[in-house]
Amino acid sequence: MSTTKLWSDEEINAHPELKSVFDDIRQVRKSDFVNNFWRALANNPKQLRNTWEQLKAVMMTEGELTPLVRELIYIAVSTANGCSYCVHSHTAAARAKGMTEGQYGELQSVIAMAAQTNALATALQVPVDAVFDLSES
Amino acid sequence: MSTTKLWSDEEINAHPELKSVFDDIRQVRKSDFVNNFWRALANNPKQLRNTWEQLKAVMMTEGELTPLVRELIYIAVSTANGCSYCVHSHTAAARAKGMTEGQYGELQSVIAMAAQTNALATALQVPVDAVFDLSES
Amino acid sequence: MSTTKLWSDEEINAHPELKSVFDDIRQVRKSDFVNNFWRALANNPKQLRNTWEQLKAVMMTEGELTPLVRELIYIAVSTANGCSYCVHSHTAAARAKGMTEGQYGELQSVIAMAAQTNALATALQVPVDAVFDLSES
Amino acid sequence: MSTTKLWSDEEINAHPELKSVFDDIRQVRKSDFVNNFWRALANNPKQLRNTWEQLKAVMMTEGELTPLVRELIYIAVSTANGCSYCVHSHTAAARAKGMTEGQYGELQSVIAMAAQTNALATALQVPVDAVFDLSES
Amino acid sequence: MSTTKLWSDEEINAHPELKSVFDDIRQVRKSDFVNNFWRALANNPKQLRNTWEQLKAVMMTEGELTPLVRELIYIAVSTANGCSYCVHSHTAAARAKGMTEGQYGELQSVIAMAAQTNALATALQVPVDAVFDLSES
Amino acid sequence: MSTTKLWSDEEINAHPELKSVFDDIRQVRKSDFVNNFWRALANNPKQLRNTWEQLKAVMMTEGELTPLVRELIYIAVSTANGCSYCVHSHTAAARAKGMTEGQYGELQSVIAMAAQTNALATALQVPVDAVFDLSES
Repeated sequence: MSTTKLWSDEEINAHPELKSVFDDIRQVRKSDFVNNFWRALANNPKQLRNTWEQLKAVMMTEGELTPLVRELIYIAVSTANGCSYCVHSHTAAARAKGMTEGQYGELQSVIAMAAQTNALATALQVPVDAVFDLSES
Repeated sequence: MSTTKLWSDEEINAHPELKSVFDDIRQVRKSDFVNNFWRALANNPKQLRNTWEQLKAVMMTEGELTPLVRELIYIAVSTANGCSYCVHSHTAAARAKGMTEGQYGELQSVIAMAAQTNALATALQVPVDAVFDLSES
Repeated sequence: MSTTKLWSDEEINAHPELKSVFDDIRQVRKSDFVNNFWRALANNPKQLRNTWEQLKAVMMTEGELTPLVRELIYIAVSTANGCSYCVHSHTAAARAKGMTEGQYGELQSVIAMAAQTNALATALQVPVDAVFDLSES
Repeated sequence: MSTTKLWSDEEINAHPELKSVFDDIRQVRKSDFVNNFWRALANNPKQLRNTWEQLKAVMMTEGELTPLVRELIYIAVSTANGCSYCVHSHTAAARAKGMTEGQYGELQSVIAMAAQTNALATALQVPVDAVFDLSES
Repeated sequence: MSTTKLWSDEEINAHPELKSVFDDIRQVRKSDFVNNFWRALANNPKQLRNTWEQLKAVMMTEGELTPLVRELIYIAVSTANGCSYCVHSHTAAARAKGMTEGQYGELQSVIAMAAQTNALATALQVPVDAVFDLSES
Repeated sequence: MSTTKLWSDEEINAHPELKSVFDDIRQVRKSDFVNNFWRALANNPKQLRNTWEQLKAVMMTEGELTPLVRELIYIAVSTANGCSYCVHSHTAAARAKGMTEGQYGELQSVIAMAAQTNALATALQVPVDAVFDLSES
């Protein structure tokens, strides 16, 4: 089920501005497989390109967090946001980047712990301690 | 503002089952400061103890993810869940565990990127690719 | 802080269509106090009336769930939705309807438990068991 | 998969209080097709009628926002709330009311932009500027 | 679709630390059926045991809220969190504990009402009334 | 309260890469006032620039949706995501772009209606009608 058309490779290849993004996805990921997210975004060429460029800049550049840690954070956000598609695709991405079963288990434990204390702090409407405020720092 | 009473040290000290948890919090964290979350949970001694024990087991044990990475995941979940208190307290905790400004900036970028593609995948109702399914693995 | 004007009693009393709703709120609740939610809704008289009438029908009629149980459910939803105002106002309402500290503690435990397993089921994308489907019942 | 029975036309027609709502849905929408949402609500005749009456009043009356703009807002909320069913049904409704592919692309861009800055503002816990407060206006 | 393997009874039975939890689930629930949630958690034996023990303590002990009321609260949270699996499994659990169609209809009405006023209070950013604050109580 | 420092104009002006963004914000908006969101993002110059450039591209370009309609959608998403800051800032932005009180009232009604039916569709787990699927279109 989808609210939009999913573009086949044949259709993508007939549109140069789409094909160039798909070519880049395949080259960067070193894989011929392009998942449905990009096939849905293809309905809007500008958004397809912008999203892919931003994803590369955020997830695939050198930085202070490893690519795997970034994927774990991505899974955590996607889980809390209830995005079924994103949980699936980024869990696969984390595994492709070497996530062990032990790391995956710990990720789940932290997500579950956070969800639980988030609910408690919200239910109790705990006031933020003054010491946590950095606005005037 | 809070929906429950926040317990002062004097009140905590008058109840041994609360005092023992607060003593442990202070000892484990090597700090005399105990934040409001625990002062709100103190209304329910059993929940206070269980939450603290579970938090220690999830966040402060040896494992395959570093304590800092677990805090980053915690911030990510708390942000997506919109828990103001938890974002404040776990950002402070991450800083106490050595989070650099560079890491914090990357964390924000990943959270923002994930929130954005979560919204797009949900808006488009992208069907999960068959290759992501591991249920029969 | 608010994105809209909060109407004072003096202003309400100058508008008969607002005053009649406020009079009914005071009479039904047997209290002169009218909380800010209604003072904000007063900017839109039709919505003020509709929301109040619907709230009465859902929360204050005879039914198979007691008024207190309905308040507990209201708190649970408001917590999961992260509505600070609603958590405050409905916790007060539940207390006014006799919620004990023991019931409040159990409510928090169930909310926290559900938040935790919600996160786990979403992280793992557990497929719904066929036996739970009632669509053809 | 559903947690409740979906009522067939045959079953609806055997219950006059359900049939009258379904007749009105068909007449107002000028279509014989009635989607599953209403077939699930049919388990609770009062809720079926109230929801339909409220939907007509909110979405199908003359007003200052066009019916299409209201559908775009509906899609935006449904996306942020992660309601798969509602995203599907209201995207179809928006198309039926003339949503162009260009408008749909812009809607997605705004939803994605908002999701992204929502996450940033929450992660940073940005304090609301005093100038935005209208409570005393 | 799932991001993890679902364990069959044969596989569970080959691992004593998993089997002992599954045996307890079957005995406590007086049913041979074990739903997919536990088959997914089985990938992480420690989490399987902890989640089950916590669930028993929260949902199946004597207390001031009946087991059915706790299930209604669980459904409410799961709905607001958009956890499809949990809505299915806990609606089935509530029915098994005697939830009537009338109670189910009222539960839905309260959930829908709360979702609606949560949205209004958040849209209007209604400031919390001072009288609701219990932090200094 | 904030988890990060808010940059004053004096501090911004001392950093050319920040100053150039703030200058552009002031010029595009034709106002000297720069709200706290940008003062918090200033801790991360790259994110400050990217977010501002993306916001201009999404919200302030010619398109098929008017700037005001885009703001209404932004408010809707921010409300559903529970982002207090964003609800405040974008409600102010919508007013600055001419939102009438009548439009604002209708916006709230649609948001409240959607929140309500989102909750019902999720509680009932209504299966998506086949006719809504466009994946093969």
